[in-house]
Amino acid sequence: MSIGIIRVFTTEDQQILHAHGNKIEKLYNINCVNRCIPDQPKGIYDDESEHKAIPKIIELAKEMEEQHAVDGIAISCAADPGLELVRQAVTIPVVGAGSCAAHMAKMVSRKIGVLTIANEVPAPMTEILGNSLVSWRKPEGVNNTADLLKEEAIEKSISSAEELIGDGAETIVFACTGYVTIGFGEILKDRLGIPVIDPVEAEGNILSFILRGG
Amino acid sequence: MSIGIIRVFTTEDQQILHAHGNKIEKLYNINCVNRCIPDQPKGIYDDESEHKAIPKIIELAKEMEEQHAVDGIAISCAADPGLELVRQAVTIPVVGAGSCAAHMAKMVSRKIGVLTIANEVPAPMTEILGNSLVSWRKPEGVNNTADLLKEEAIEKSISSAEELIGDGAETIVFACTGYVTIGFGEILKDRLGIPVIDPVEAEGNILSFILRGG
Repeated sequence: MSIGIIRVFTTEDQQILHAHGNKIEKLYNINCVNRCIPDQPKGIYDDESEHKAIPKIIELAKEMEEQHAVDGIAISCAADPGLELVRQAVTIPVVGAGSCAAHMAKMVSRKIGVLTIANEVPAPMTEILGNSLVSWRKPEGVNNTADLLKEEAIEKSISSAEELIGDGAETIVFACTGYVTIGFGEILKDRLGIPVIDPVEAEGNILSFILRGG
Repeated sequence: MSIGIIRVFTTEDQQILHAHGNKIEKLYNINCVNRCIPDQPKGIYDDESEHKAIPKIIELAKEMEEQHAVDGIAISCAADPGLELVRQAVTIPVVGAGSCAAHMAKMVSRKIGVLTIANEVPAPMTEILGNSLVSWRKPEGVNNTADLLKEEAIEKSISSAEELIGDGAETIVFACTGYVTIGFGEILKDRLGIPVIDPVEAEGNILSFILRGG
């Protein structure tokens, strides 16, 4: 059994390319085929770049189903780009990191805080969270996933998480898949003692659940 | 680490009492404390019986947190009776089987069929599924969990699941925790080849996810 992990930006760095898949393989013991879209090193950052990316995401998904015979696909981005169109293009289950994380958060709480790196919460997450979204915060100085690798990012992100709790959040969900790379979920759970949902872990969890049964 | 499993009817039969917990222990290797509410052998079947059950569910939850030091609680019924009130009464995460199953189904599909044993889909599931609920079916001759143990129940349930697919469903979710007892999720997945979500597996999955991290 294997799943396809679609990264929605272009990289030649194998460590970066495999970061999400490695986490899922470690947690769920499920083989991952990791691929990224071509010719978009900056990924998705506005409507135009999303529009450009979606046909590439669909092509990758079809290729993964046909050539790699994967049993399921994760669009490994909190904004779920192209999710419904990819579902129409393949016959296997397809999930998006953002909607998985938002649904998991809703399973445990109606008071949810979102930690993001952008100036908004991705639309699919906002829609799912509804009035359970009590607050969202962006750590100071963190504007993209690269910023999460800076030394001070962890302390700044912890401060933002503490602010979310101050705002009334009883569960925290990340609106960025980059937090998994720095192992921030574990750090935060230890520090705060409340449920913390990481989108990469969430997508791996649901695919493992439906493909293996429970 | 351990979790509390609240059964919303009264039984002295240890095998029945432990059925959900045993499944969760086997799937997620997490210790379960299994308890049932007193003086309601028929469980919850209308508004009045639900009204009577909720204070008992809250009491059980408090007792599990205080005396058994469980780390999380599952209200193991697809109707999520008392979920928000139990959350207010304890400090640990609380989930309901029905909302967990509905959210899991929504992670993988927008075309969801519900297999139930009652003449309606529990309200929390309907609310979560929204317009992703394409159809629901009740197997012929199955009116309560005991009926699921009858010889013909599996074939009748398979027929209903096939009807759901005919109605356009691409994922099936059970609106009854009794299906886990007969291992119906596995049977259906083998037969139909589409994702099948069982509420008991779903509640175990999310508690394992948030308590252990991923």
